[in-house]
Amino acid sequence: MAAEPFPSEPSTDPLTDPYAGDPVFELHRGGKIEVTSSVQVTNADELSMAYTPGVARVCTAIAENPSLVRKYTWKSNVVAVVTDGTAVLGLGDIGPAASLPVMEGKALLFKEFGGVDSVPIALDCTDVDEFVETVARLAPTFGGINLEDISAPRCFEIERRLKERLDIPVFHDDQHGTAVVVLAALRNALRLTGKSISDIRVVISGAGAAGVACARILLQAGVGDLAVVDSKGVLSEDRADLNPVKLSLAQDTNTGGLSGRLVDALDGADVFLGVSGGTVPEDAIARMAPGAMIFALANPNPEVHPDIAHRYAAVVATGRSDFPNQINNVLAFPGIFRGALDVNASRITEGMKLAAAEALAALISDQDLRADYVIPSPFDPRVAPAVADAVSKAAREDGVARP
Amino acid sequence: MAAEPFPSEPSTDPLTDPYAGDPVFELHRGGKIEVTSSVQVTNADELSMAYTPGVARVCTAIAENPSLVRKYTWKSNVVAVVTDGTAVLGLGDIGPAASLPVMEGKALLFKEFGGVDSVPIALDCTDVDEFVETVARLAPTFGGINLEDISAPRCFEIERRLKERLDIPVFHDDQHGTAVVVLAALRNALRLTGKSISDIRVVISGAGAAGVACARILLQAGVGDLAVVDSKGVLSEDRADLNPVKLSLAQDTNTGGLSGRLVDALDGADVFLGVSGGTVPEDAIARMAPGAMIFALANPNPEVHPDIAHRYAAVVATGRSDFPNQINNVLAFPGIFRGALDVNASRITEGMKLAAAEALAALISDQDLRADYVIPSPFDPRVAPAVADAVSKAAREDGVARP
Repeated sequence: MAAEPFPSEPSTDPLTDPYAGDPVFELHRGGKIEVTSSVQVTNADELSMAYTPGVARVCTAIAENPSLVRKYTWKSNVVAVVTDGTAVLGLGDIGPAASLPVMEGKALLFKEFGGVDSVPIALDCTDVDEFVETVARLAPTFGGINLEDISAPRCFEIERRLKERLDIPVFHDDQHGTAVVVLAALRNALRLTGKSISDIRVVISGAGAAGVACARILLQAGVGDLAVVDSKGVLSEDRADLNPVKLSLAQDTNTGGLSGRLVDALDGADVFLGVSGGTVPEDAIARMAPGAMIFALANPNPEVHPDIAHRYAAVVATGRSDFPNQINNVLAFPGIFRGALDVNASRITEGMKLAAAEALAALISDQDLRADYVIPSPFDPRVAPAVADAVSKAAREDGVARP
Repeated sequence: MAAEPFPSEPSTDPLTDPYAGDPVFELHRGGKIEVTSSVQVTNADELSMAYTPGVARVCTAIAENPSLVRKYTWKSNVVAVVTDGTAVLGLGDIGPAASLPVMEGKALLFKEFGGVDSVPIALDCTDVDEFVETVARLAPTFGGINLEDISAPRCFEIERRLKERLDIPVFHDDQHGTAVVVLAALRNALRLTGKSISDIRVVISGAGAAGVACARILLQAGVGDLAVVDSKGVLSEDRADLNPVKLSLAQDTNTGGLSGRLVDALDGADVFLGVSGGTVPEDAIARMAPGAMIFALANPNPEVHPDIAHRYAAVVATGRSDFPNQINNVLAFPGIFRGALDVNASRITEGMKLAAAEALAALISDQDLRADYVIPSPFDPRVAPAVADAVSKAAREDGVARP
């Protein structure tokens, strides 16, 4: 039987659809992904093997030996991309339905860059307990859970509880995908500037999902002096307005005892990492240390425009594809899940994330390393395999790989 | 970027996997479906259209006008195939993981026969409330819900509550898919035997999901005298052991006031419909009315072997592909969902199911109709389009089609 004998064709009516003809919308028409069959069913014999009665033997075998589900279903290669639509891109809480184009985009990138099948799941529930319960009930179907676009600080508890509960990788990409790519770029910026990770002073603007995860991975990687700034100022233990996640971060950072606002913290800093939006005044950037590194990741408007940043910084990175050094999560998540799935990892450890960052950084040789090339292109075909290999290896070393 | 640069390849080790080399298992290796991208992402421009920042405009448009989700995501063409693994084929309660090969098979058939994308979802929860809540939370992602292999009588309440709650089609295929195909085959068997649907006496063996749904559709279609038999005997109002679903069915059937066992009920009956397993003795079949119709659907062992059934019956159907007149749900569900999705139906009405059955029956012309050809082959390419058209039309007539 030919695939898709009569696919549905949504109608195009410019009167009812003001977006008809817009190239971005045309690309999204009907969605960006589909489910296709990887086996043929063209006659009664094939049907009786792929479906009843033949399939009953496969079901029985899995019921008797549950580990066979990885061999004889797509579970070992399929990830759920789960959101509640509460923090979609820079758009905020737009709800599950409106988040679907992003989740489909993620599924598209999982397949194209990592060979990972994934399914967008936009949940109509915002209660943390309900969200955790729902994902836990879905889990038998999937080899991994990619959490996406969930507002902070809810995202931290959701991820923590799901990691405790499930024996498959759970990964909040807005946190850890960003953190891995930032660490990779920082590694190479340090190679260029000759600075040591233990000596630099880092200021992170933003204490949401990305800010918290970046702070955590930089601490893991050896940054000694790191301050995180939210909209009220530098996180410090004496602030009374911090939620538990921020308070914990305050306890583990700001060893210099900084207080005040972002512009104060930047005075003499080596690294500015912007993951919050807003604008940093030029004079604050001007007071950073010599050989400064500026990662201004807000999209579409970086916290510091690259043209201004370059006046004061040795290395500049953004989240935009039209400037050099794009910090793009697609450099991380396809390879991380590819590597985790390949070794049937029970979870994604800190070691696996660090290994992903180091592998990503190492793709740029000393000869090629330049101020405008501290991170590979998303289209560099070496990226996902290198990340996957490093992640698989780290999973084995950390004892989370399974037969 | 080429699709699947390095797909995972599960290892084949005959020492650890006794099924390696078995053709059915080899066909299932790695699963039977995959998620593929329907748009290309080969450079930064395409990436910025399919994902950030371009995708944000599509999200914003949907947030402002929720109906656009049907145009600019895959929602309008994707169905969740949801189970809890409590009643898988004839295997019973084997749990969610072991049910996955069947759910994948269903997804495969949805795509191959109906052009419908679908996603297997095997839930780790058997409580009815939890199941309903979970599916309701998943619903924003999908254009329809196909319930599958859920044990009776739980399946009836689950379907009823989800239909009440959701504004997309909810369809328990084990009930209604079977019922539609049975009605189609019966229509044509009546054309052959010259009997009238209002005059025949029907005996259904089995009061589970399929038995209940078949009884209901046959009553809708005009059968006047119908008795349903469970393992304890004929359903009648004076039985004290009936659950609410069976009691309701007893009230609406058995107008002849039968009691006793299946063999008693068959005396003089025109139609035997077996959807329960077990074996019917030959002498009971022998006492059916002249021109009897025997639909013995148990798999792999029909309640009456076709060779025996043919001694007494004018028309014989089974669930098996190696005998004529196979009653196979794949004749119904791909076309039913295709038709419902094509007109954005809010639900699947009784009218839509009846229309599907009539369209299926009508595919066999008077010239072609024979005792061994009362139902089309699953591979007849006319089937799904004819069912879909009839279902779309009925949805419009029933007022459940939406722009």
